[in-house]
Amino acid sequence: MSFDEVTRLAQQKGFFFKSADSYPNSPAGFLDYGPLGVALRNNFVELWRRMVVKGDSMLEIDGSQILPKAVFEASGHLSNFTDPFVRCGKCGSVFRPDKLVEEKTGKGVAEKLTDGEYDSLMQESGVKCLKCGSKLSGTSRFNMMFRVGIGPLQDEAYLRPETCQSIFVDFPLLFKTQRVKLPVGIAQVGRSFRNEIAPRQGLLRMRELNQAEVEVFFNPKNTEDPKFERFANDTIPLRDPSGRESVVSVKEAIAQGDIPNRLVGHYLALLVRLYEAAGLRREMLRFRVLADEDRAFYSKSAYDLEAHLSVGWVELVACNYRGDYDLGRHSQASGTEFTVDDNGEKVLPHVFELSMGVDRTIYAILESSMKTDGDRRSLAFLPYLSPFKAGVFPLVNKDGLEEKARGIYEELRGALDVFYDDSGSIGRRYARADEIGVPFCITVDHDTLNDGTATIRSRDSRSQERVEVSSLADRLAQLSRYPNLPR
Amino acid sequence: MSFDEVTRLAQQKGFFFKSADSYPNSPAGFLDYGPLGVALRNNFVELWRRMVVKGDSMLEIDGSQILPKAVFEASGHLSNFTDPFVRCGKCGSVFRPDKLVEEKTGKGVAEKLTDGEYDSLMQESGVKCLKCGSKLSGTSRFNMMFRVGIGPLQDEAYLRPETCQSIFVDFPLLFKTQRVKLPVGIAQVGRSFRNEIAPRQGLLRMRELNQAEVEVFFNPKNTEDPKFERFANDTIPLRDPSGRESVVSVKEAIAQGDIPNRLVGHYLALLVRLYEAAGLRREMLRFRVLADEDRAFYSKSAYDLEAHLSVGWVELVACNYRGDYDLGRHSQASGTEFTVDDNGEKVLPHVFELSMGVDRTIYAILESSMKTDGDRRSLAFLPYLSPFKAGVFPLVNKDGLEEKARGIYEELRGALDVFYDDSGSIGRRYARADEIGVPFCITVDHDTLNDGTATIRSRDSRSQERVEVSSLADRLAQLSRYPNLPR
Repeated sequence: MSFDEVTRLAQQKGFFFKSADSYPNSPAGFLDYGPLGVALRNNFVELWRRMVVKGDSMLEIDGSQILPKAVFEASGHLSNFTDPFVRCGKCGSVFRPDKLVEEKTGKGVAEKLTDGEYDSLMQESGVKCLKCGSKLSGTSRFNMMFRVGIGPLQDEAYLRPETCQSIFVDFPLLFKTQRVKLPVGIAQVGRSFRNEIAPRQGLLRMRELNQAEVEVFFNPKNTEDPKFERFANDTIPLRDPSGRESVVSVKEAIAQGDIPNRLVGHYLALLVRLYEAAGLRREMLRFRVLADEDRAFYSKSAYDLEAHLSVGWVELVACNYRGDYDLGRHSQASGTEFTVDDNGEKVLPHVFELSMGVDRTIYAILESSMKTDGDRRSLAFLPYLSPFKAGVFPLVNKDGLEEKARGIYEELRGALDVFYDDSGSIGRRYARADEIGVPFCITVDHDTLNDGTATIRSRDSRSQERVEVSSLADRLAQLSRYPNLPR
Repeated sequence: MSFDEVTRLAQQKGFFFKSADSYPNSPAGFLDYGPLGVALRNNFVELWRRMVVKGDSMLEIDGSQILPKAVFEASGHLSNFTDPFVRCGKCGSVFRPDKLVEEKTGKGVAEKLTDGEYDSLMQESGVKCLKCGSKLSGTSRFNMMFRVGIGPLQDEAYLRPETCQSIFVDFPLLFKTQRVKLPVGIAQVGRSFRNEIAPRQGLLRMRELNQAEVEVFFNPKNTEDPKFERFANDTIPLRDPSGRESVVSVKEAIAQGDIPNRLVGHYLALLVRLYEAAGLRREMLRFRVLADEDRAFYSKSAYDLEAHLSVGWVELVACNYRGDYDLGRHSQASGTEFTVDDNGEKVLPHVFELSMGVDRTIYAILESSMKTDGDRRSLAFLPYLSPFKAGVFPLVNKDGLEEKARGIYEELRGALDVFYDDSGSIGRRYARADEIGVPFCITVDHDTLNDGTATIRSRDSRSQERVEVSSLADRLAQLSRYPNLPR
């Protein structure tokens, strides 16, 4: 499926759509989730919460989205979280120099160039304003954080560009009040804000985005804890900086030096399990191992979990061994003690981060679930992710079947997400249900009145099973149960 | 319990705490939810989603928090969403004139005065700067929306001061794509932002807050729909503008003219059911019927659901019959058609709004759940709201009880929110569990090894029940099930 087909389906069915779309010229990079999108995203977040947060006995917090300037001075965002841009001298249009050069030459431009390097590349390739053809300015820098002013004096503050800073800043208080020991993961799901210069690509690049982040705090001397042995035989797909691809067990990857320790291996394997449980085939996934020059200076090793989609490889989770950079900076800037006790040793913990893009993940689930068969579209969501678990249909709207079906719907809806539909032919109703990914349909027919059974039709196999009406709720709950916690 | 006691417990146990508290002088009005707070809030939101959103077959969306200027021009926020303030000529401190006068005179100041009226009141009462005692400026106005600039050109946009504007703006698209008919409710839960001049009072007045809002769209000719008959005999507590308090059935309130129609009565009764299901006693609740002069000019009737807490009566849900003001304004400003078809009639729907403060609700649940017995504190959360459903304890840490208890914990945690604790005496562990509102504790003793049973101890009755280990999960699930949907 192409990006445009997925986006069209999403808009038609109300998974997501452009924000403030009733208004002309509403800004790019902002999307609203409709009812099906809210449910799909909530169900995925619940899967993440079960498999990653609870499965690993992490803490979950929900911090403020607006944070004071001092936090982003310490984190480095105030000076470094910038994008390069150029401006047309005549019409005032604004562009990213790397995107202009890439479009003109058809070749990729390396990340993190200096302003002078961008200027040289633009000169070599002879780019002009895309709108009016005039001469462009030299490269300037634009900080991608949204600034806000607090109170009448407009005290300088910013919308967070990532959820994790509250996790770092709150770490001492959480460690003290939550009766935990190292290693401990702290998780957060919520909005982040990045003032992109020219966002395109719908859910893949947003100015207001949803992230689910995990920061694992550990004693750097204790990365070989036996609890990280659980997934040692899981295989993970790696692409090293030279472009070599391999699928090796966590154990082998550590032995080869591709992964530094058990702790890191454990979390990479857990992510593969999570995405497989979200319905992404293993062959669509890989960890891109970042080369030294592509990592931040404080990062000791970094892995991008990527999915192969219609638009190419898309980063879904950035995994980063950040050392003690974050806690050290916040400790220094705030004057607060960030060291903690680990079995009698005073430690400034190191951090391994799993930073997930939730919107991109939802896009990946949508694209990889979408199937067409002639002009019939369907979404093959796993039942626990599906917004609706079942539709309830009377076979025909007479002989009391409608009342019977409505009664069954009323019974079921207290326990499960179900909907009622009696409009159009039964085939048309199955087709509509398939289009929004409903895994099961309950059909109430004349036999239901006689023997108290109804059929459960499966979206994927198209097979039908006859079930006692009284056990429908249990059967559907069983069919749409979340997978067990990883052991 | 006093406000300070509740806030202290919340901080000690990590329900919520001041944001960026590691930093000196971090701004007021921002709080982070810790692990127990996240779970309690999620469980309450799930109760709201079941009883209100799903129970009433509403749609739920999740819109962008940043919206363009045009939306707030149309909504009226850009010109009207202001607070009065005065400034010290010497030290620059900023105050609200009404709060200064209230503190000085001990008497309440009416809402919505003009700048001149505030100035007269200040002069009469002789208020000075609270910090340095100097003379204050006259009253100015401050728009309480946080402004942000989008892209390098900083296009004017705002953080939403309420979630509902996306519901209004998206209404035509949702009505078209979601196959719904009038009346239909559209709901949203999420952050809103209000740049308060001097917020105090923790969760009760925040600059970044959580709301759960519902907009019910209906044909004004059809407010007597029989589906709104369901709760006609429910009683609701009313306080009319003259101060008269009464508890009457919805039916009587309509007959007396205190409630204009069945539709409004239905939703007021549903809110009372919701808050009772959240553990607030009916005697703590009342609807304050707003007088004509306290309502916005477009509002046809308005009711504040208030709870009686240690700080006085606190507004939890603002209910407002907004007519067609919102859809009309957005239609006009955007040039988009907002009328829809209702059984062949072209209608610009009217709106009844239920705007809930989630943080205030969480505060109300915490305060009303907190009990002390000597120096023992406990939180009497209803089981479905409690962050943890059970703790699992070995009676002693020997004879294999630890391993047995850990095994039971591992089995249970896939299905339910449970924790393991083997530290300190069993009495101390019960006390710790009571303090964070855990409704049940499972104790594993020597009999567990012999006969495969364990005890479930109830927080509220302190009674103990012996249950087969194999049926613990089912028993706990049953004990902590959400209430049935309202019929």
